[in-house]
Amino acid sequence: MEHLHQSFTIKFEYNVYFTTGLFDTANTLFSDFLLKNNTAEVQRKIFFVVDSGVAEAHPELNTQLKDYFYAHPGIQLIPDILIVPGGEGVKNDPIYFEQVVEAVNTYGIDRHSYIAAIGGGSVLDMVGYAAAVSHRGIKHIRIPTTVLSQNDSGIGVKNGINYFGKKNFLGTFAPPVVVFNDDSFLLTLSDRDWRSGISEAIKVALIKDAEFFTWLENNAALLVQRDMPTMNYLVWRCAQLHIEHIASKDPFESGSSRPLDFGHWSAHKLEYLSNFEVRHGEAVAMGIALDTVYSQLSGRLSVNDSNRVIKLLQNLGFDIIHPLLEVHRDDSPILTGFEEFREHLGGQLTIMLLTAIGVGEEVHEVDVELLKQAGKLLHNLQHQQVQ
Amino acid sequence: MEHLHQSFTIKFEYNVYFTTGLFDTANTLFSDFLLKNNTAEVQRKIFFVVDSGVAEAHPELNTQLKDYFYAHPGIQLIPDILIVPGGEGVKNDPIYFEQVVEAVNTYGIDRHSYIAAIGGGSVLDMVGYAAAVSHRGIKHIRIPTTVLSQNDSGIGVKNGINYFGKKNFLGTFAPPVVVFNDDSFLLTLSDRDWRSGISEAIKVALIKDAEFFTWLENNAALLVQRDMPTMNYLVWRCAQLHIEHIASKDPFESGSSRPLDFGHWSAHKLEYLSNFEVRHGEAVAMGIALDTVYSQLSGRLSVNDSNRVIKLLQNLGFDIIHPLLEVHRDDSPILTGFEEFREHLGGQLTIMLLTAIGVGEEVHEVDVELLKQAGKLLHNLQHQQVQ
Repeated sequence: MEHLHQSFTIKFEYNVYFTTGLFDTANTLFSDFLLKNNTAEVQRKIFFVVDSGVAEAHPELNTQLKDYFYAHPGIQLIPDILIVPGGEGVKNDPIYFEQVVEAVNTYGIDRHSYIAAIGGGSVLDMVGYAAAVSHRGIKHIRIPTTVLSQNDSGIGVKNGINYFGKKNFLGTFAPPVVVFNDDSFLLTLSDRDWRSGISEAIKVALIKDAEFFTWLENNAALLVQRDMPTMNYLVWRCAQLHIEHIASKDPFESGSSRPLDFGHWSAHKLEYLSNFEVRHGEAVAMGIALDTVYSQLSGRLSVNDSNRVIKLLQNLGFDIIHPLLEVHRDDSPILTGFEEFREHLGGQLTIMLLTAIGVGEEVHEVDVELLKQAGKLLHNLQHQQVQ
Repeated sequence: MEHLHQSFTIKFEYNVYFTTGLFDTANTLFSDFLLKNNTAEVQRKIFFVVDSGVAEAHPELNTQLKDYFYAHPGIQLIPDILIVPGGEGVKNDPIYFEQVVEAVNTYGIDRHSYIAAIGGGSVLDMVGYAAAVSHRGIKHIRIPTTVLSQNDSGIGVKNGINYFGKKNFLGTFAPPVVVFNDDSFLLTLSDRDWRSGISEAIKVALIKDAEFFTWLENNAALLVQRDMPTMNYLVWRCAQLHIEHIASKDPFESGSSRPLDFGHWSAHKLEYLSNFEVRHGEAVAMGIALDTVYSQLSGRLSVNDSNRVIKLLQNLGFDIIHPLLEVHRDDSPILTGFEEFREHLGGQLTIMLLTAIGVGEEVHEVDVELLKQAGKLLHNLQHQQVQ
């Protein structure tokens, strides 16, 4: 049968910069990026969307932005800055997505202009999605402000909002044009948010880099004390492992494999079941604990390695189990998380487990009885520690 | 300053097949495609969305689909087929987009399953957008049923819906996994729809292929008589030129240049101003006439070439001007179309004009006085013809 064949490749590129005081007038990193991409004939605009948590912790930000673009002309700052709530709520209610899209229309933001998002992973996900679908894709700048978003979600290629109560039901793969990780935003994080982001570093160490895991063990105390150089290395190394992973395999995830989702199938569900009282990073820590102990009980992982993982999580102050994550009954809501995870991945259920620290293995079946035992074991460990 | 660099390429590939009677049980083209991409461990599903115009003209289609997938098992047909209105209305009201997204949820359509759209360009655009953002991209199959969609929009990489009264305000670049052009759908088109799609062939010939333009001149009478082999060649050649163009330049349109939008800046606006009583192809024919005569009046194009274009349009039965397209006043609503077109493109205004048949030239400025003259000239020509 006669046919036409279409084939082309698209190159995606961006840098992730690390800095302190991104919008200090003397810091030209941001303006250098913008000017480098400027062309004489086009007047580019930039529109900012800011996480309310960041806006509260940094009341000077608004003035700082205005001063910065006054000092570094060449791009038109839209003076109205959109503040949206931080946390999962911004992905649950489509009104915030609508607000960004409306701003695109109101301010005439075109495809050569920028939408910059300053905030945690949820805000970046929502704004990234709105930017990706407005005019079929407006240039998107990410300025992640939490440990979690600086080392994980904020530097990747995914965006999305929740729909039908399902995480990231709507979204796209759309790389940002640039990412700026500014460590001064980390200073104002609560201890809870500071810790939360560390779980993604543990995750990526567990499946990719035993040496980084040992570094985490050795530096757990400094991390708890909020030592900044230690956190800076953690963010850098975790970001690097993520960036490398995305480029090396299947950036837009056409297959069923998602090694970076280690510990995430139950974490996603737990976030929902707890009505997002459990933070993503906290849920991931518990998901890591569950899948690690499951790896051990199913004969893949040594008891020693399993204990090291649990100990590190506990040393960092993470809870390792949540009542909602204990799989007592066959109709436990967490078990339905499997099917939803499979559906979102598409195709075959694929879960990452561990065979050693730094070495993952993908499996396509899960033994519910062993999963129940893993939940029980973690319950007991958590209980011991609390006593 | 230290930074991480991300860089990767994504390959996009798909075939455009030409066939007759795609869902005749004996025609294995469709099932061959599905089976070739099947893997043992995944139960794939397929969900159909059908243009109401097609459903009315082909009342047998529903049964045919069921018989087809009964005869060719291996994929799970979702028995509920979603019928949506044809034409621009389906892109104007977000409820249809919502209906597709809801079906993805209701039927558990995952990223290894398919959403197939059967219909005109508007239905394909809307369904393509819903598929592209559900679960960050469900495999999308296009079955265009009009001349316009078979030779132009349906075989490309764009999708979208209208928002804020602006065409394709929301959308993405997301190639389909396969396109099937079935010429039996063309048999039931109205004369108006049959003709409409020819304007995109004229457009692409004018900017890329003088020989194809001559062929169109020589075959205008056969096209008007609805000779099927002639139309088949037109669709094939026009599709081929589009496919080649997309792959050769800037598939996801990161620049301001859009040569395939020749004649489209005014056409888009005219569709809106006429409340879509003027079909896209009809508006494009008038847009081509306007930009051709403007090319002549601005000294780029010979009078002879300009006349050939107008004559071909008229021989095919197209109107060459519309009262709304006549640029009498400085505040003519058509003139605002410039700014909207620029904003959607992003950056600098870039309009394609002609220097000869088959040769385009991009310009960044338009002389409003000459544009008014072009409108007047076309008004007189149209008037002469009618007399």
